[in-house]
Amino acid sequence: MSERLPRAVGLLGGGVIGGGWAARFILNGVDVRLYGPSSAAVERVQKKLAKARRAYRRLTQVPLPAEGTLTVVNSVADAVRGVDLVQENAPERLEIKQPLLASACQAAAPETLICSSTSNIIPSLLQAEMPRPERLLVAHPFQPVYLVPLVELCAGQRTAPEMLPRAAEIYRAVGMHPLVVRKEIDGFIANRLQTAAWREALWLVHDEVATVQEIDDAVRYSFGLRRSVLGPIMTYFVGSGEASIRAFLKKWGSGNNASKLTEVPEYTDSFLDKLTEQSDAMVSAENMTISEYTQMLDDGLVRVLQGLRSERWGAGETLARWEQSLRKRVPPVH
Amino acid sequence: MSERLPRAVGLLGGGVIGGGWAARFILNGVDVRLYGPSSAAVERVQKKLAKARRAYRRLTQVPLPAEGTLTVVNSVADAVRGVDLVQENAPERLEIKQPLLASACQAAAPETLICSSTSNIIPSLLQAEMPRPERLLVAHPFQPVYLVPLVELCAGQRTAPEMLPRAAEIYRAVGMHPLVVRKEIDGFIANRLQTAAWREALWLVHDEVATVQEIDDAVRYSFGLRRSVLGPIMTYFVGSGEASIRAFLKKWGSGNNASKLTEVPEYTDSFLDKLTEQSDAMVSAENMTISEYTQMLDDGLVRVLQGLRSERWGAGETLARWEQSLRKRVPPVH
Repeated sequence: MSERLPRAVGLLGGGVIGGGWAARFILNGVDVRLYGPSSAAVERVQKKLAKARRAYRRLTQVPLPAEGTLTVVNSVADAVRGVDLVQENAPERLEIKQPLLASACQAAAPETLICSSTSNIIPSLLQAEMPRPERLLVAHPFQPVYLVPLVELCAGQRTAPEMLPRAAEIYRAVGMHPLVVRKEIDGFIANRLQTAAWREALWLVHDEVATVQEIDDAVRYSFGLRRSVLGPIMTYFVGSGEASIRAFLKKWGSGNNASKLTEVPEYTDSFLDKLTEQSDAMVSAENMTISEYTQMLDDGLVRVLQGLRSERWGAGETLARWEQSLRKRVPPVH
Repeated sequence: MSERLPRAVGLLGGGVIGGGWAARFILNGVDVRLYGPSSAAVERVQKKLAKARRAYRRLTQVPLPAEGTLTVVNSVADAVRGVDLVQENAPERLEIKQPLLASACQAAAPETLICSSTSNIIPSLLQAEMPRPERLLVAHPFQPVYLVPLVELCAGQRTAPEMLPRAAEIYRAVGMHPLVVRKEIDGFIANRLQTAAWREALWLVHDEVATVQEIDDAVRYSFGLRRSVLGPIMTYFVGSGEASIRAFLKKWGSGNNASKLTEVPEYTDSFLDKLTEQSDAMVSAENMTISEYTQMLDDGLVRVLQGLRSERWGAGETLARWEQSLRKRVPPVH
């Protein structure tokens, strides 16, 4: 496994995301060279490192490798020297990222992989002014970067195809789950779904239907508990009790639970075919029946609830309170 | 606590939701009278009970009370006899629910609380034809009902105000988290957020951006992991690293991550004021600073990941694989 680990990584930008990357790489034994224009960057990275160390100590009992080093440098050229991967984490503005990536590419060794953490700018735009655009990829992480495994990989029009598997191996070696986004779209995949819910939440506050607290509680005490086990599509399918997603969609259609956001694709036969095929493929790829899926959902939920009980957080507190009331009840009489 | 437990509950309908309610009440020691027009209802309820017993055995080491009894009856009148709560779980059609609720109300003792599990019909419509509409509430649960704690309570125009706290006490006594939805809206709160993401997911499949598997993986390996800890609004706030949600919104506005679902409320000063006040209220109600929030998010994430590792599910498998590769690495040399 460790042969896929980069020797060193050059980080451009030491904000919330850059600091999270620094922590993930350093705790996995990878040396980091950090270029952050702000003088606060180093302090921020040190704070992230402290948080990540605490999290990893709680997460695993497997001994971690010796930490990588953190070297703070004063120029882009210095940051990319001798590294296998450059990870750019500048503010989300094309006019900042484009020249930064171009100069990183100029200064780096020709085989260096150059990845952007952007959550919102498509790679074809990012690579437009790069001298060697074939080495540029988007590798979009999620906070906190040292704990959340997903990294969305997206290639631009001019990216060389071999860059995707190379990047995937590196991220996998530091404990992540790379997901290739096959089309360049704004927001990639996860954030589109997250943003759709966020916008609906804003409307609920705006229209005085619910407060911030009520909305967040509605989620974390309900479907939020199963989101770590099942995503938005399989949740409906598995939960519906129907034999297929086609039967589910035919029964429920788009009428259920109208939202402010009304557009929905038309349920043509070919669209239903596609959904059915893809859902069946997912179920069979995971080698489970629907009934085994519901079992796994139960088991996953039990674990999540147990974990939150230990932290006394949200639904974990509800569980702890329930147990307290059970203890007070008289023992069963037969 | 146990004085708030209902003596018995009458269930109308024994499908996926009715079966889940039966399991929650029976395992909490409450007798259930079930009227399900389908002959398959009893078998379905028995299956749910078996699943729930397995889940509770894994969930808690606290001894459960003696199970309540399950009595299957042949009429609505029989189901509601001598119960403190009637829970209606008929198909989601007003023309089915309205007469069913009316006859339940007719036959029940005057003090009986009558709750509908509807996910989609507002209570003022449900109570329109009831002889004593003041006893009707929506009490909307989530699957699996015996594990997920949220129940959304919503009163209609003619509901007596004291019904809300009475219902809340009953649901709390069986380990749930009641949330009062203050306005009657289609889909109540949680499903509006869930539906917004579901629709966006349908578009992604429709437009061939991603498959069902890719979408579900994008969620359960990323923000899905933190949804049991933080809801959609606080996630942005806590994760942004900004000092206030106002600063976050001013910086990010609505431009980030455009989705197919484009409408978003205008960020007027008064809307920003409302969001800021409500977010601050939530943080101070939970008696935490933002930095303590991020700590709790880390700790919650660690627990969720640990739990999923034991089940080898989604991100839990990624974690287990990472630990395996750590074990293979040579011990640190100094």
